Amino acid sequence: MISVVILGAGNVATHLFKAFNTANNVSVNQWFNRNISSIFQYKNEVDITDDLSLLKDADVYIIAVSDDAIAELSKQLTFKNKLVVHTSGSVGIYDIDKKQKRGVFYPLQTFSKDAEMDFKNVPICIETIDKKDYHILKELAISIGSPTKKVNSDQRRVLHLAAVFVNNFTNQLYRIGHEITESEGAEFDLLKPLILETANKIQELSPYMAQTGPAKRHDKKTIKKHLKSLENDHHRAIYELLTLSIQQTHGRKKL
Amino acid sequence: MISVVILGAGNVATHLFKAFNTANNVSVNQWFNRNISSIFQYKNEVDITDDLSLLKDADVYIIAVSDDAIAELSKQLTFKNKLVVHTSGSVGIYDIDKKQKRGVFYPLQTFSKDAEMDFKNVPICIETIDKKDYHILKELAISIGSPTKKVNSDQRRVLHLAAVFVNNFTNQLYRIGHEITESEGAEFDLLKPLILETANKIQELSPYMAQTGPAKRHDKKTIKKHLKSLENDHHRAIYELLTLSIQQTHGRKKL
Repeated sequence: MISVVILGAGNVATHLFKAFNTANNVSVNQWFNRNISSIFQYKNEVDITDDLSLLKDADVYIIAVSDDAIAELSKQLTFKNKLVVHTSGSVGIYDIDKKQKRGVFYPLQTFSKDAEMDFKNVPICIETIDKKDYHILKELAISIGSPTKKVNSDQRRVLHLAAVFVNNFTNQLYRIGHEITESEGAEFDLLKPLILETANKIQELSPYMAQTGPAKRHDKKTIKKHLKSLENDHHRAIYELLTLSIQQTHGRKKL
Repeated sequence: MISVVILGAGNVATHLFKAFNTANNVSVNQWFNRNISSIFQYKNEVDITDDLSLLKDADVYIIAVSDDAIAELSKQLTFKNKLVVHTSGSVGIYDIDKKQKRGVFYPLQTFSKDAEMDFKNVPICIETIDKKDYHILKELAISIGSPTKKVNSDQRRVLHLAAVFVNNFTNQLYRIGHEITESEGAEFDLLKPLILETANKIQELSPYMAQTGPAKRHDKKTIKKHLKSLENDHHRAIYELLTLSIQQTHGRKKL
């Protein structure tokens, strides 16, 4: 049995709480949040507190607060030499106060407030300073069904950066697709099966092999038609830049 | 029973042949390709030919060849006043020779050579000049399980353009994610569940509502860190442009 204390009440904290709370060999000893009203609804399921001086003992303290608040919160912990981890992709492991044993438990996934998340679809990237701390974090991830991966700081940094490309930026392309279709009263919904298939395709195929379309084919006529048809300057700039990027990846000449 | 003749042997033609050939109320009377060796393996399932003068009679002739070849092929058809459609998102309906009844049967999906495709996930966008021709094309789409949508030329144009954004450009973002992770020996595979979840999320939520991340939060510190960490000029330009685009969509200040 691994005991944990969760600190924070955002999406990651809440999804982790729910997963740990239903896992067989994890005990959530306490849930801390500075503003207790955010976690008040869970008071019958777990001991809640807004007072750092009242934190209970646990094997692992999981700080799942906003990036900017991690260092400060870890500094305010009154105990020392306990395993304290944060869940951020972009905050350094050394940002955790040095009086603790430090680690990172980074779930590489996007969490929605309402949607349930099956943790078998949430790879946990684990980083520790002391090798001995790695195993308990790995066990913790396995206990909620997550695949795990040991990473170093550079690997975690590039994974977080790549996640911005494949998640935030991709979602913005969906948004632009929405804007473009709506401009002529066409239905964005018609694109949804294509969006799913695009994501499905690279589960088996590399993105390099999966590429298709006018940019890869160097189909100048269609590219020209598309650029002419784009009324929004930003959309046009994105079209040009990503077309060029595809053509650099797939050889031959430029736009 | 609707009878069809398919012209062309690319991915779309092949997937359509397989779907029509197993549909209950569709008869594939013939399959034409200029280079008959491409369809020779189907000779026991359907009548094949490479001779336009030998085309059989059918209710619908489906031209599924490359965009540039559609007009010329339609001109070479020896009969007249038959329903002839192409399957392209970007070619005009009037590119089909005017001696025929003209239409478009545009499957809004990305087809792989080897992967099977369930046509319930392939919306068919239908355009006809004569309203009477619309119904047979709709029936044809329904017979293979596809959702259908009547579109005009402008709507088809923007759907094809939006498809480039959500399919080709999104796939290029996956490719960049691949390059970035590999640069530090991190595994691209770790991003695959995130990629799927990003596509899944907007099946229910609008892309506007689904957006998260440093750009939307106007998290300058993380954005600066990311830009500094991107060694490839192209990746950096794409990061800047898409961050700006997200910030324009989600208000407040610029990068």
